[in-house]
Amino acid sequence: MQLVIGNKNYSSWSMRPWVLMKHFDLPFDEVMLRFDFGPGSQFSSAAVRFSPTARVPVLVEDDGFTTWDSLAIVERLAELFPQHAIWPRDPRQRAQARSMAATMHSGFGDLRRLCPMNIDCDLQAVGRRLLASEPNLFADLTRLEALWEPALQAHGGPYLFGREFSAVDAYFAPVAMRVLRYGLPLGPEAASYVGALEANEAVRAWVAGAMDEKCFVVEDEPYRSGASEAPR
Amino acid sequence: MQLVIGNKNYSSWSMRPWVLMKHFDLPFDEVMLRFDFGPGSQFSSAAVRFSPTARVPVLVEDDGFTTWDSLAIVERLAELFPQHAIWPRDPRQRAQARSMAATMHSGFGDLRRLCPMNIDCDLQAVGRRLLASEPNLFADLTRLEALWEPALQAHGGPYLFGREFSAVDAYFAPVAMRVLRYGLPLGPEAASYVGALEANEAVRAWVAGAMDEKCFVVEDEPYRSGASEAPR
Ligand SMILES: N[C@@H](CCC(=O)N[C@@H](CS)C(=O)NCC(=O)O)C(=O)O
Ligand SMILES: N[C@@H](CCC(=O)N[C@@H](CS)C(=O)NCC(=O)O)C(=O)O
Repeated sequence: MQLVIGNKNYSSWSMRPWVLMKHFDLPFDEVMLRFDFGPGSQFSSAAVRFSPTARVPVLVEDDGFTTWDSLAIVERLAELFPQHAIWPRDPRQRAQARSMAATMHSGFGDLRRLCPMNIDCDLQAVGRRLLASEPNLFADLTRLEALWEPALQAHGGPYLFGREFSAVDAYFAPVAMRVLRYGLPLGPEAASYVGALEANEAVRAWVAGAMDEKCFVVEDEPYRSGASEAPR
Repeated sequence: MQLVIGNKNYSSWSMRPWVLMKHFDLPFDEVMLRFDFGPGSQFSSAAVRFSPTARVPVLVEDDGFTTWDSLAIVERLAELFPQHAIWPRDPRQRAQARSMAATMHSGFGDLRRLCPMNIDCDLQAVGRRLLASEPNLFADLTRLEALWEPALQAHGGPYLFGREFSAVDAYFAPVAMRVLRYGLPLGPEAASYVGALEANEAVRAWVAGAMDEKCFVVEDEPYRSGASEAPR
């Protein structure tokens, strides 16, 4: 099985199924398509061979069968590997986990737009500027707390549905990266959940890969040319 | 079981599970929260009683258990009613159907933003203006064709996975409404799929409900005050 992904430093949607597969130790080879943009982009012409959307991630099974979109990939993995609790085993917890993952999948547009994932940069100063000027960013953080806190309270953490890391936690792993790098403020329960995600081994493996990349997309990183933010 | 929805004229996300439940004749009562906006909106204060996102649709089971977000609701229904082929029965067709539904769930932002669903209005003139000025709208239509055509060809139509209407078709029903009302151009296969969705009985039942509503949100309808577009 192959998982087609983008740069680990930037590709938040790729991170979700990668971390999930790593966490459950599913056998896969990673195929990385590096991002570039503009006319004649090699990323799009490579990606369109895997998916009609020309986006990553894409799951490619051994005979070439493809599932694209991170959420559909998670559901495919749950069907292929029923021996793993990819979603919580309890049907109602599973419904709630899917409600939360689907909310992330279709929402949090301001957080995603204002704070793109960039794992190897310390962006605290950028975060402070944004927090001072973008009330919508605060609103998204409040929405995150409203989503996470009841589940953390009901199941006792450290993950959303208790001791077992599942697909919904993989769904929020890139959010944890944004909160940490941009220094975004969250209440204590939400903040400790972010800490649990950061400490997860599969997440750490992705982060280590991102730190090793020496391939930046300058168009995406106005701050890298300025003096205010140094790569970590 | 209750399905909490917004106005049928506007609420594209509510339309998806409603049409699906109607098509499979699942027993449910509809609870409509009418949209209003701005500070002190009664919609949000009512919706937040059902979901932390304060959005519709929400599925409420008889003992009060809630699943929110249209895609999570579809998965919950598929688990509660395994006797119905809510997703295609073939596992690989199901993975493809989920890839397509998840693509709709997270994408087509320009089509959604530029052409909000408004079932009881003839918006052909608005559509013509948009097509002349918004290249991104064309790009979204091209993406739709790229998504639909291979499935229609592989399975012979009229629906995406052949003769049986499933969740993925419910996912595209509001898109069909937009294509029809705004007069958006599509190739012959995609256009005949839109025709099949329009002719589906559950879709027609939703449309009839929308036509009966006499409750408009003026802020959302600049064209209704102008002389160029008359309500149908
Ligand atoms: N809904 C999709 C979103 C995928 C997506 O937007 N991927 C980004 C990378 S994180 C991409 O491929 N961007 C390239 C492009 O838009 O050309 C999913 O969940 O997989
Ligand atoms: N991802 C959600 C989107 C739900 C959504 O945006 N619903 C709209 C109505 S179609 C809503 O409740 N809007 C009210 C608001 O944003 O305050 C889903 O698929 O259910």
